[in-house]
Amino acid sequence: MLGAVRHLTFPEVDSTAAQIGAGKRRGEPDRARAATLRERFDAVRRATLALAAPLSPEDQQVQSMPDASPVKWHLAHTTWFFEEFVLSRALPRRPRFHPRFAYLFNSYYEAVGPRHERPRRGLLTRPSLAEVHAYRAHVDAGVGEWLDAGRCGGGELDVLELGLHHEQQHQELVLTDVKHALFQNPLRPAWRADLPGPSGAAAGPLRFEALPGGLVEVGDGGAGFAFDNERPRHRAFLEPFALAARPVSNGEVAEFVAEGGYRRPELWLSDGFAAVKARGWEAPLYWEPDGGGFAEFTLAGTRPLDLDAPAAHLSFFEADAVARFLGARLPTEEEWEAAASGAEVAGNLAEAGRYHPCAAASADGPGQLFGDVWEWTRSAYAPYPGFAPAPGALGEYNGKFMVSQLVLRGGSAFTPASHLRPTYRNFFYPDARWQLAGLRVAKDLR
Amino acid sequence: MLGAVRHLTFPEVDSTAAQIGAGKRRGEPDRARAATLRERFDAVRRATLALAAPLSPEDQQVQSMPDASPVKWHLAHTTWFFEEFVLSRALPRRPRFHPRFAYLFNSYYEAVGPRHERPRRGLLTRPSLAEVHAYRAHVDAGVGEWLDAGRCGGGELDVLELGLHHEQQHQELVLTDVKHALFQNPLRPAWRADLPGPSGAAAGPLRFEALPGGLVEVGDGGAGFAFDNERPRHRAFLEPFALAARPVSNGEVAEFVAEGGYRRPELWLSDGFAAVKARGWEAPLYWEPDGGGFAEFTLAGTRPLDLDAPAAHLSFFEADAVARFLGARLPTEEEWEAAASGAEVAGNLAEAGRYHPCAAASADGPGQLFGDVWEWTRSAYAPYPGFAPAPGALGEYNGKFMVSQLVLRGGSAFTPASHLRPTYRNFFYPDARWQLAGLRVAKDLR
Amino acid sequence: MLGAVRHLTFPEVDSTAAQIGAGKRRGEPDRARAATLRERFDAVRRATLALAAPLSPEDQQVQSMPDASPVKWHLAHTTWFFEEFVLSRALPRRPRFHPRFAYLFNSYYEAVGPRHERPRRGLLTRPSLAEVHAYRAHVDAGVGEWLDAGRCGGGELDVLELGLHHEQQHQELVLTDVKHALFQNPLRPAWRADLPGPSGAAAGPLRFEALPGGLVEVGDGGAGFAFDNERPRHRAFLEPFALAARPVSNGEVAEFVAEGGYRRPELWLSDGFAAVKARGWEAPLYWEPDGGGFAEFTLAGTRPLDLDAPAAHLSFFEADAVARFLGARLPTEEEWEAAASGAEVAGNLAEAGRYHPCAAASADGPGQLFGDVWEWTRSAYAPYPGFAPAPGALGEYNGKFMVSQLVLRGGSAFTPASHLRPTYRNFFYPDARWQLAGLRVAKDLR
Amino acid sequence: MLGAVRHLTFPEVDSTAAQIGAGKRRGEPDRARAATLRERFDAVRRATLALAAPLSPEDQQVQSMPDASPVKWHLAHTTWFFEEFVLSRALPRRPRFHPRFAYLFNSYYEAVGPRHERPRRGLLTRPSLAEVHAYRAHVDAGVGEWLDAGRCGGGELDVLELGLHHEQQHQELVLTDVKHALFQNPLRPAWRADLPGPSGAAAGPLRFEALPGGLVEVGDGGAGFAFDNERPRHRAFLEPFALAARPVSNGEVAEFVAEGGYRRPELWLSDGFAAVKARGWEAPLYWEPDGGGFAEFTLAGTRPLDLDAPAAHLSFFEADAVARFLGARLPTEEEWEAAASGAEVAGNLAEAGRYHPCAAASADGPGQLFGDVWEWTRSAYAPYPGFAPAPGALGEYNGKFMVSQLVLRGGSAFTPASHLRPTYRNFFYPDARWQLAGLRVAKDLR
Repeated sequence: MLGAVRHLTFPEVDSTAAQIGAGKRRGEPDRARAATLRERFDAVRRATLALAAPLSPEDQQVQSMPDASPVKWHLAHTTWFFEEFVLSRALPRRPRFHPRFAYLFNSYYEAVGPRHERPRRGLLTRPSLAEVHAYRAHVDAGVGEWLDAGRCGGGELDVLELGLHHEQQHQELVLTDVKHALFQNPLRPAWRADLPGPSGAAAGPLRFEALPGGLVEVGDGGAGFAFDNERPRHRAFLEPFALAARPVSNGEVAEFVAEGGYRRPELWLSDGFAAVKARGWEAPLYWEPDGGGFAEFTLAGTRPLDLDAPAAHLSFFEADAVARFLGARLPTEEEWEAAASGAEVAGNLAEAGRYHPCAAASADGPGQLFGDVWEWTRSAYAPYPGFAPAPGALGEYNGKFMVSQLVLRGGSAFTPASHLRPTYRNFFYPDARWQLAGLRVAKDLR
Repeated sequence: MLGAVRHLTFPEVDSTAAQIGAGKRRGEPDRARAATLRERFDAVRRATLALAAPLSPEDQQVQSMPDASPVKWHLAHTTWFFEEFVLSRALPRRPRFHPRFAYLFNSYYEAVGPRHERPRRGLLTRPSLAEVHAYRAHVDAGVGEWLDAGRCGGGELDVLELGLHHEQQHQELVLTDVKHALFQNPLRPAWRADLPGPSGAAAGPLRFEALPGGLVEVGDGGAGFAFDNERPRHRAFLEPFALAARPVSNGEVAEFVAEGGYRRPELWLSDGFAAVKARGWEAPLYWEPDGGGFAEFTLAGTRPLDLDAPAAHLSFFEADAVARFLGARLPTEEEWEAAASGAEVAGNLAEAGRYHPCAAASADGPGQLFGDVWEWTRSAYAPYPGFAPAPGALGEYNGKFMVSQLVLRGGSAFTPASHLRPTYRNFFYPDARWQLAGLRVAKDLR
Repeated sequence: MLGAVRHLTFPEVDSTAAQIGAGKRRGEPDRARAATLRERFDAVRRATLALAAPLSPEDQQVQSMPDASPVKWHLAHTTWFFEEFVLSRALPRRPRFHPRFAYLFNSYYEAVGPRHERPRRGLLTRPSLAEVHAYRAHVDAGVGEWLDAGRCGGGELDVLELGLHHEQQHQELVLTDVKHALFQNPLRPAWRADLPGPSGAAAGPLRFEALPGGLVEVGDGGAGFAFDNERPRHRAFLEPFALAARPVSNGEVAEFVAEGGYRRPELWLSDGFAAVKARGWEAPLYWEPDGGGFAEFTLAGTRPLDLDAPAAHLSFFEADAVARFLGARLPTEEEWEAAASGAEVAGNLAEAGRYHPCAAASADGPGQLFGDVWEWTRSAYAPYPGFAPAPGALGEYNGKFMVSQLVLRGGSAFTPASHLRPTYRNFFYPDARWQLAGLRVAKDLR
Repeated sequence: MLGAVRHLTFPEVDSTAAQIGAGKRRGEPDRARAATLRERFDAVRRATLALAAPLSPEDQQVQSMPDASPVKWHLAHTTWFFEEFVLSRALPRRPRFHPRFAYLFNSYYEAVGPRHERPRRGLLTRPSLAEVHAYRAHVDAGVGEWLDAGRCGGGELDVLELGLHHEQQHQELVLTDVKHALFQNPLRPAWRADLPGPSGAAAGPLRFEALPGGLVEVGDGGAGFAFDNERPRHRAFLEPFALAARPVSNGEVAEFVAEGGYRRPELWLSDGFAAVKARGWEAPLYWEPDGGGFAEFTLAGTRPLDLDAPAAHLSFFEADAVARFLGARLPTEEEWEAAASGAEVAGNLAEAGRYHPCAAASADGPGQLFGDVWEWTRSAYAPYPGFAPAPGALGEYNGKFMVSQLVLRGGSAFTPASHLRPTYRNFFYPDARWQLAGLRVAKDLR
């Protein structure tokens, strides 16, 4: 017997700081780390603005669906995150930029207070884009001064670092959301018409790499930054399996389409086939018939479909069906992580400036694990054994979403390299198609 | 016996011109009329831009609900109307501004071709506002040159005149739609903060004017412009009735609210009470609790509710219930027109620059018939006896909407005076609240 | 000036009786009328049970859509009407059959109290059909005893007579609702397989009868029973017009279908064409492709489509489009009534035992005005000039539905002859198709 | 490298038999097993009818929501399963009972052909209940003769055994669905008013049992019947944990309600709290306010809430929130199975005749693992490592549902004991409340 239940009251909102990440205690200033983060802060904030720069105020205004947000909202929300969780706690007397912005730009933190409804973000024509830029400048100045003063505790810097990763997540969302918004326009306008085209590499036949299984360790156990959902590091047992050496290509998905894949229920999960019928899916999102084949909408406008490039903008349902069509299955997230552990985080990531998946020359071992497309796994997004969310509002960051979504791994051509780790867990609902998501297949070996 | 049915094929799209209005035949140029219309064209086009001028590109981008359209879309659509129905027919070799604008900015003319879905107008971030301005300039120049050349037939000028009235209808919609859009923002921003406040006049007690009934003539029979739905002029028989001397005031509606009007089914039509419950109506649109009373959102932002001003932003359902609460009923459109025939079209219309209803000093006879608020009648919008829509696409202008809507009369503070007539028939669905619509009550006299 | 508004409180629920119909005052017993009504009461109540008799308890249980009700519910609701409005007022000490039946079987009388939600009527498996039969017997006995005692006032008998017409309305609904319910079953079962087939008459070419117009009287002004919505009798002015000598036939609608009628927007009201697309309409309800032509589901099961019979199960939208296809229009209800005034109420009505429209030999003047199919008019259902609903709960009978519906005239093969008058106004929403409704076309004569 | 991808065509519908279960090959008759199964077949089929016996034909007709099915449909569908997968394959010349029943009573087997839409099952008033009984008798006779003849192959008997477990699953659904249907009736009628009341035992304080974790085996590896989703048996690694000694009680959930649990977002998953708000949840399904406390709808009608009994009719969302409220979490399915392995399948199961959860005297170790309520786990329903669905239509039995649902363990008071195993995996969507599902909490031990 372990003892009677304690009727715990749930942790109150912690108005001081969330103890996320591995850092010093709140009260101990850490000048060196503050200086490093100051540089990183400037770089990340600039990078966000650079993504928005090719867009008009109108482009940054619209919300194409409830799942997406306006670019302007992303610019403001990421700023609010620093104002709310860093500045207002570190310098509580510093006035906020606007008394109502917490209401307008809080995304989902119930503990912080009420907020504007998500599906109505696109209706906020005020503040204007210019005012949002001023808001960014105001908060940037505050954070900069605070960091320069150097009296920042470790816990506070942890939250700042979380804010930077948070902003990098939104950089990817800026791209997925603006791509979706531009696609709603029959003129099919480009975000940037000057992006490079296909790599010219050939996909080559689909090879598999055998992996031994056994007791493995997964999850983050290091001293650097990781999200709470990557922790704690723990053991898992795997049967032997094989993993494809590259993501599934557009050519393979085109074959799936050509062989009636979207009309064959035996290839689909039941919910997946219901989605196919209810939404009229006939090809991946952004594919449009073009002569006998397909063209594809990209951030550079509509282009011919590159059959060698990794297929993208697939829902989990489609990824699962394509895997079955190929006589394979999706890997679990533990299988994926076991195969990727030790691999260098490098590939066609945001820094490559392509902003679109492309074929790579084949190499030994599983290739293209990082970048190009997020890879759907068959693992439901769930807490790791021993997972405990942080106390306070930041405990809402990840934990409350741990149901009904699936884990994706590996980052995409929209993901900054400095944001990624082999243990990184992305997650979306199984019908989501507007993310830069594809698949890599696996097989059982017994 | 009249003869066997002729299996008529339906009139084909008339690519030359619609024979709307009373004008000369198409081939006969009419220089004087062209010159008059040139002036009016310039004035109407300028007036539209003036309404949009206080708004940012972002303000002009959004669509707050499927019934409303973005201001930018209104600017482009009214331009397309002239390009499609005037320029491209009068000067068929003149190139169109953009090959896809007919797709983007056709509202509902099935005969002209396919078009962008109405509820998705707010997603068109391209063309930009600047490009839409260029579009307007391009078409304005073309129309101007054509009118100056003076070789315009009467039928062509009829269509041009229709286009001007069409644009004036959209001027009113610009105001109703932008008001609705700004109201979605919790900051409650203003279109123009400098609008004048209440008139200071008192509503006074609600008096009724007795009218004799009998055989009356309604509908337009003159030589000037009128919409097809106002024709033909015809006879109708009316019983004696009484009509209130002014519209119902905010004070009277506030009493309706205070006495539980929104919770008393006996005051409502069945569909109306279902709407009240389904949508949670507790007061007219734009009323917000303020202390013990109400404030009201206006184009100048939120202001205290002026109890003397005519009540506005009521659905037909609410207008009908308020009338019943007052021991009265809504008039029919024939009753309204009989009472208004011969009255001067003057009042608190757009030219007054108030852009909000206001109280007026009481006068002999029914007052405030024109301006302030559109007045709901109990008449369903239906074809007049002998009504025939114009051949061709312009036959879709009015006729195809003649079911399930109710007629409103008299214009509002958003309506240009030059756009109105005593025979003018406006029409909306019974649940529409975003129009500047109120009511005037009537009573039976037998 | 007529006088200031009186802030009338709305009439309270009148717990004594509604003054509907032209009868003696409440307190004066009328033995002769009581005896006549006793006979009629027995006949009407028996007729309802006869309609339900071919159906199993399961058939009488289901509700195929929110607009329809289970047969068992109709049996109980009509009984509740007598219990609530006749028995419980005439004999207030007599115990009710069950304390909760008022909750279960009140249809829409807000003044009587809360009630079971309409779309959930099909879930009431208890009371069982046997219990509902017992309920009917209990109330029938009470009414019978009361009538036999002969101390019934005129107002009370008026309500009883209203209850009989109410029950006859539900007899028609029993048939329309059970037809719809049986059609949901892929086995296409019959209500009664023994119904007679086509009449064998030929529809003949579509002739029109010219009518002069002028000032006419419409509405009920007699001493016999009529619904409040038929009153008061009043004058209306009509232009000369022509009315078809018979309803539109299945053959004519089949031609409409064959010539692409359901795909040609120019034939439709805008709301109508939206309904066509949203619901995938390709033919009238109950038509099913059969070889190159159509079969039709009837109360006797599926049968070949009789091209000569009047077309049925058309919505107003379809009726309006078919009329336009035929180069004609729908008549107004005043036109219809002017043409029908003085005509004998005879035709293919319920007593004929066909329960399906059939062709008739052509005659002089407009034929088949009564029976076969309800004929859609273009008139919105609205109060007649001077209309005032009865005080009390029975005032909800008709008046509160006077918006957004269209008037139909003439009765159908499901309507009892004793229930019909030339002034009778039926009404449904423009998209309703499950009623036995068709059309007769009209034309302007100037 | 493992080899190039083989473009497998997906397994065709196997018209002979599905190789489910561990049995002999198809061609080898197994007389002894046939005789055993004959007895079991009769017993299971009788048990289903016994559950339906207290219900009228009307009660067995209705479908209260798309997730539920009419009792009559369950009776027919389970029969079709034997006709389709056993009889028509073993005795292909034997005529089917009705040519359309495969269409009406196929639930979701795409490979078998098209079928009646699930949400419209309640509209099938034909076949009548009597005809469905005849259908059952017809198929029972066929199966009986075939088993008696004794020429049944092992594979065929495997499918028969699957059919028996399938029917037992539907026995539980008959009870959950009829409970839901009866609850829709404001009269709150009983299935059987004669069911026993509370056990009188006290729930006692919530104790936890510590379990060591490590490498465990889960899944079925035996020779007896198990569903494909329980296979293959495989290893999993568990951290040490503690499991509550009994399910959470009504008293504990009542405390959750009293302390505002349904209004505190910090206790809920994000999707869960959205469901609470959207559906207005304020207590478990079937709880109704009663004085200061709650009454509970049961299959015996409404009864006072037994605070000592295990809480039931909770969604996963509620179970998860209640666990958090108690300072605990839900176990994983592997943890549950590890704790239950070796335990005897005994408890308050269907055979107990209570048909409602009840408190049990506390015992050593985790108690009440079987029966009372299905226990939600935090494990998403997913394929076990190495899982492969059966070829043919029966491969659709379980595998295609492996997304977006959560696993439940342990059976309920509606589950037959002979249907249950410690490895049994039940699964439902996280918002499902009409199942007899509750929870048992767990805790981390490190």
